[in-house]
Amino acid sequence: MNIGFIGTGIMGTPMAGHLLDAGHALFVYDRVKVPQVLADKGAHACESSRAVAERSDVIIVMVPDTPHVQAVLFGDGGLYDGISAGKIIVDMSSISPIATKEFAAKIAEKGCGYLDAPVSGGEVGAREATLSIMVGGKQADFDIVRPLFETMGKNITRVGEVGDGQTAKVANQIVVGLTIEAVAEALLFASKAGADPAKVREALMGGFASSRILEVHGDRMVKRTFDPGFRIELHQKDLNNALDSARKLDMALPATALCQQLFSACAAQGGKEWDHSALIRALEVQANHEIG
Amino acid sequence: MNIGFIGTGIMGTPMAGHLLDAGHALFVYDRVKVPQVLADKGAHACESSRAVAERSDVIIVMVPDTPHVQAVLFGDGGLYDGISAGKIIVDMSSISPIATKEFAAKIAEKGCGYLDAPVSGGEVGAREATLSIMVGGKQADFDIVRPLFETMGKNITRVGEVGDGQTAKVANQIVVGLTIEAVAEALLFASKAGADPAKVREALMGGFASSRILEVHGDRMVKRTFDPGFRIELHQKDLNNALDSARKLDMALPATALCQQLFSACAAQGGKEWDHSALIRALEVQANHEIG
Repeated sequence: MNIGFIGTGIMGTPMAGHLLDAGHALFVYDRVKVPQVLADKGAHACESSRAVAERSDVIIVMVPDTPHVQAVLFGDGGLYDGISAGKIIVDMSSISPIATKEFAAKIAEKGCGYLDAPVSGGEVGAREATLSIMVGGKQADFDIVRPLFETMGKNITRVGEVGDGQTAKVANQIVVGLTIEAVAEALLFASKAGADPAKVREALMGGFASSRILEVHGDRMVKRTFDPGFRIELHQKDLNNALDSARKLDMALPATALCQQLFSACAAQGGKEWDHSALIRALEVQANHEIG
Repeated sequence: MNIGFIGTGIMGTPMAGHLLDAGHALFVYDRVKVPQVLADKGAHACESSRAVAERSDVIIVMVPDTPHVQAVLFGDGGLYDGISAGKIIVDMSSISPIATKEFAAKIAEKGCGYLDAPVSGGEVGAREATLSIMVGGKQADFDIVRPLFETMGKNITRVGEVGDGQTAKVANQIVVGLTIEAVAEALLFASKAGADPAKVREALMGGFASSRILEVHGDRMVKRTFDPGFRIELHQKDLNNALDSARKLDMALPATALCQQLFSACAAQGGKEWDHSALIRALEVQANHEIG
């Protein structure tokens, strides 16, 4: 089975590397340039997404956001012009669930399968092949692609039909963002009230307030280590997918909207590249108080 | 050592019971009536808080909110009129950290110690002696009272000086409320977007979105089991302490304020006695969609 891979950035390069290490023939395209490390492992560089599609059975896409996926699929020299019946497109980018359903419907016209399979776990997870992969699409397509997912990740869940993988990823990012907000308000309150936020964090661990975010991001807030990690601008992109989708679905996500505004307040202070735990800085400005 | 206990409600009664079971002489007052179960165990009913204070070395207070503690301490027949140098007052109610510091300062004028020691773990924790106890106050006072805490709870932390126990409890309730909001927005989004919220919840467990709230309250939302648990009206009281204190401290807690409004929206639907995971119902109204 020939595999295509489009988008060899920070995430895509190690992911494609695992597929090559597993012995797959890999046809690769990137808007910028296919990295030397993949060429050294035997990747075949192609001149367009279309060329990748023509030579591959399963084509993986790993690009930043909805418009990039749209361009890869339907732009000039896009996948749509190169695919034929029986091929499967696997979008591992984190994009809009609603756009995903539209893309999949158009791809289905050509008799091709479509899986949305966004990941969480970041650069470290991509490098160590420990990504969580949330998949939407037909069971039969999932069964074919599953061995490829297993070379790239650990926690692989088929959530449901097309779009449901992206929906789960958006839900994940809502929970992560709002839990960061929860921990930030609590620790800042504790500090401003005169308590030691590190002690308060410890007292809260183990009870109903406990979470991975309290553990990891709470510790970052207390120690003020705001190097990413996961950059605020990426979380802004994910919450934009949440809020844009929610508007189209006619529903309110009030705390998600608030969280996005606080990320924007961080950006206003030059914080787009801070780790997302630095959301506390937006609250600190509003409290005229820095914890620690 | 004679122990006083004021406030034998749903929480106070089993807590006082553990002290009696441990063999302590217990002098008890309640505004309503000392329960028969405590009398049967040998508790001495007193006619006022003042009478309790006169006969006890350590006096525990377990009443609903700040005004009740104020009345117990400084009202007619209150503790203040019965204490003398060397006695220790231990307030295990969940009240304002700022008022707590004022109360403690006034009690100190009489040469008495003051510990604030709010608990989490609810009725079940009180009954099973598994409460988490967050303590503020002098180390010497804490050392004296610690054996009593150990008959009532498991996770006992001295967070810092007077008021810091209440501050930690407020921080705990901020985190719990806002994490419920996080899980509610995420699962409602997933459902409205057409995915199965139960599947999405499962996909999110184990990653950065994982928390006790996702585990327990997320499950309640999916199964729609909204019997308390922890009543919305109690969480409203705790968030009121958070927001009232934040105003006095000149700081903004925007998501805490939002969470409080959604609890009020539940109350508007007759939901004061629902479990706090029913916060999702306030969001469901805004989405014209019920998950499940």
